[in-house]
Amino acid sequence: MESNSYKNYNNNSRNNYKDNNEDYNCQKKSFYNELIEYSKNGRYPLHMPGHKRNERLFDGIDPYKVDITEIDGFDNLHNPKGIILDAMKNASDFFETDRTWFLVNGSSCGILAAISAVTNIGDKIIIGRNCHKAVYNCAKLRNLDVEYVYPSYIAKYGINGGYNKGEIENILKKNRDVKAVVLTSPTYDGIVSDIEEIARVVHKYNTVLIVDEAHGAHFGISEKIPVPAYKLGADLVIESTHKTLPAMTQTALLHLKGDRIDAGKVQEMLSIYETSSPSYVLMCSIDKCIREIQKNGQQRYDELLNVINKIRKNVNKCKYISIPCEELKNENNVFDVDVTKLIINVNNSGITGKQLGDILRHKYNIEVEMDSLKYVLGITTICDDYKELERLAEALKEIDKSLEEKQNEKISVELLKNKRMYSIYETDLKEKNTVNLFDSKDCISGEFVFLYPPGIPLVVPGEVITEELLEQIKVYLEANMNISGLKDNSNKTIEVVK
Amino acid sequence: MESNSYKNYNNNSRNNYKDNNEDYNCQKKSFYNELIEYSKNGRYPLHMPGHKRNERLFDGIDPYKVDITEIDGFDNLHNPKGIILDAMKNASDFFETDRTWFLVNGSSCGILAAISAVTNIGDKIIIGRNCHKAVYNCAKLRNLDVEYVYPSYIAKYGINGGYNKGEIENILKKNRDVKAVVLTSPTYDGIVSDIEEIARVVHKYNTVLIVDEAHGAHFGISEKIPVPAYKLGADLVIESTHKTLPAMTQTALLHLKGDRIDAGKVQEMLSIYETSSPSYVLMCSIDKCIREIQKNGQQRYDELLNVINKIRKNVNKCKYISIPCEELKNENNVFDVDVTKLIINVNNSGITGKQLGDILRHKYNIEVEMDSLKYVLGITTICDDYKELERLAEALKEIDKSLEEKQNEKISVELLKNKRMYSIYETDLKEKNTVNLFDSKDCISGEFVFLYPPGIPLVVPGEVITEELLEQIKVYLEANMNISGLKDNSNKTIEVVK
Repeated sequence: MESNSYKNYNNNSRNNYKDNNEDYNCQKKSFYNELIEYSKNGRYPLHMPGHKRNERLFDGIDPYKVDITEIDGFDNLHNPKGIILDAMKNASDFFETDRTWFLVNGSSCGILAAISAVTNIGDKIIIGRNCHKAVYNCAKLRNLDVEYVYPSYIAKYGINGGYNKGEIENILKKNRDVKAVVLTSPTYDGIVSDIEEIARVVHKYNTVLIVDEAHGAHFGISEKIPVPAYKLGADLVIESTHKTLPAMTQTALLHLKGDRIDAGKVQEMLSIYETSSPSYVLMCSIDKCIREIQKNGQQRYDELLNVINKIRKNVNKCKYISIPCEELKNENNVFDVDVTKLIINVNNSGITGKQLGDILRHKYNIEVEMDSLKYVLGITTICDDYKELERLAEALKEIDKSLEEKQNEKISVELLKNKRMYSIYETDLKEKNTVNLFDSKDCISGEFVFLYPPGIPLVVPGEVITEELLEQIKVYLEANMNISGLKDNSNKTIEVVK
Repeated sequence: MESNSYKNYNNNSRNNYKDNNEDYNCQKKSFYNELIEYSKNGRYPLHMPGHKRNERLFDGIDPYKVDITEIDGFDNLHNPKGIILDAMKNASDFFETDRTWFLVNGSSCGILAAISAVTNIGDKIIIGRNCHKAVYNCAKLRNLDVEYVYPSYIAKYGINGGYNKGEIENILKKNRDVKAVVLTSPTYDGIVSDIEEIARVVHKYNTVLIVDEAHGAHFGISEKIPVPAYKLGADLVIESTHKTLPAMTQTALLHLKGDRIDAGKVQEMLSIYETSSPSYVLMCSIDKCIREIQKNGQQRYDELLNVINKIRKNVNKCKYISIPCEELKNENNVFDVDVTKLIINVNNSGITGKQLGDILRHKYNIEVEMDSLKYVLGITTICDDYKELERLAEALKEIDKSLEEKQNEKISVELLKNKRMYSIYETDLKEKNTVNLFDSKDCISGEFVFLYPPGIPLVVPGEVITEELLEQIKVYLEANMNISGLKDNSNKTIEVVK
């Protein structure tokens, strides 16, 4: 057998080798070339990563040169005693946490580890319905029983607001066996909930608060930016250093504050969800990022915020386009707003967010973070080129002149309270049929349907598919927004419970 | 409250900022400086990563310049339709698999996803007792019921051999409800089991074979290297591209072959265990690595193997030191051996593997992959500097001259068949006491104790701690080998079930 399989293999591999060389030669652009080319096209990034491709990591030294493994003197992320421990301690001192872990598998692994550290299989948790899919993934993996708290809805801009502490308290009253409350603050759009008050309620019911602060890694660096959740009573807080701070994509932090959660259990779960071969390049980029904000963060943020305030004032003189901020604070359950997030609103201007995004992309060579229905979202950081931000403002004023008053259709994209028949894991075990997506009304969904970005589920496995839900999906697809989660990549069919 | 927390925060942050600047200034070496310094010390790496810090990724372009996110035209790892799909298809064509996924969270996430894709919570699997801790982590996370198959033991060298297909068949006969068999081949030391025969047995019992081939990513590139498991009947195979191939640390591949496993389910699980913000730098390094081996892999491997054979012949003239290879093939259950792994054996030479490692490190400036009791392990790849490999041979001959015949103590490090009282997850739920490690005889362990590297558990939670086990741990600690897994980093205490 052996010699045979060798023989087959060699024949195959020879042909294959030849084929692939041809591939290789005729393939004009490899992954590598695509990246290099893009890096040279000069399109300005109003999106992640926060370093805006504008920093240098190794001053010309190729990453391979410093891409080492756990050799003598270089510690072990999963059992840190040396330079990794020192770097994490330095971060913890700066952020004033009781423990801060570097994450090389993004905020996703921080969320999985945080929830898994405080629950057993089958336990009950409360989650914000607008949580990232990683939270739902954990519920699926560990058969968690989930109660939802819905964020408020800001109809004027079509975005989610904050959470109501009263609603959270009502759910806690009815569910005394809840092991954790998991919320997202800030939202992708920069909406901050009143974590201090919510934490008080959560602790009153002897449970713990986990906050997905992935979009708030910069919080607290300047007094003009919201205070981070771990300073307001949250027990575990996950932050993405690549989203709003200058670290490489896929890097994040997990902060522990207080004594309600066992640090050993958290470490144990991180060692499950993170690779046993963590990249020293990624870990180094986290450390470098933190040292930079320790040294210059306050000053660099104060500069950025001055620029952004000018831009807001400037753009808010427009007739149709606006970048709301203070107005949002007057909304129900909105405790604070992250001024570094630009919600560039085109409501009632005759164009959609997607159309504005395309104009900025193709006419002005500016790439935004997300095109939504009534707005585009821009992310600004201390690595921005302020001249480019001023160019954005001029572009918006120019675009505004070309617009005409036109009532947008009244479309609500408020998260729907779908009726739940089974838990996510129960649904996983059921037999399923595949039906046309738009013929699935009244069926029980067997799949997630996410809007990505930001990765919030419109429907969760085990929930009943309604007319309203299909309407929303249709609206998103028509606006060329990215629907994901369905096994059928074309978004034509959906699996439903038999 | 708000203003207060701001106030506190500002005070704190100001002090803190000052402290940290002092820290920062007095701290001679940051993580970054440590890496840069190490990259210049010239110590030759006989260890991972496989690129040996000897390749270039971006030809002088800083990784930040190409560290992008899922913007238009750059696809989405979790829903690939564009350049990521193309790159993975190219890999799949080259390796002749039905599907190949790029992994940015190492082989760990491939193992978690593979097992989770074919099991539900509480299902039964068979695993090789010498599997990597990621396999045990999955059992813990999903409350899997585990049956063990033990590798054979090669006493002369103190290493694990291959698996016996008869033993696997016996376990399958007694456990008709097994959902998957999970084995490690090659081992960390390069020992290959007869996957073709084992796969036949596994499939006869209508279950699936998952092979952790993390150390065999280079298999099949030359006919002088073993055939990869996915060509011999394995259904899912995990390979680390950073271990033996020239890709960055934390990168790996998951291969699917045949129709026994649903690719959709695998994708679903990968999307849970991998970050939703995957690094384009890591993905690019996988693609670049594969294109290079497509183009020059066979030739570069044939060159490497010529050098290695010369070195083996040369060193095997020594009186005490040897680099066994063919001899290993005559051992029970050893089907094949990876010649690129150098098991540099010092049995009966009066010194331990650890001592040899130290001599190579400090006298010859060569860092090996692992110091073991009776040998050191070296990893060679196509990125090695062949002059350095010849220097290694000369160093070993020189060291050999200084050695004297001395029977090593007869120490067996064969994996112990500890009595099991509870499953890993059951043990997780039990109350525990902390006792002195060496007073824990006859207790039921509440923790893992791993030998790291390679990350194989000596005892698993729920197993009885025996005299023999404590003897083995003592031997490893005395040899300064790295025992990990215990919450007590000093390895003085262990948690046991009350």
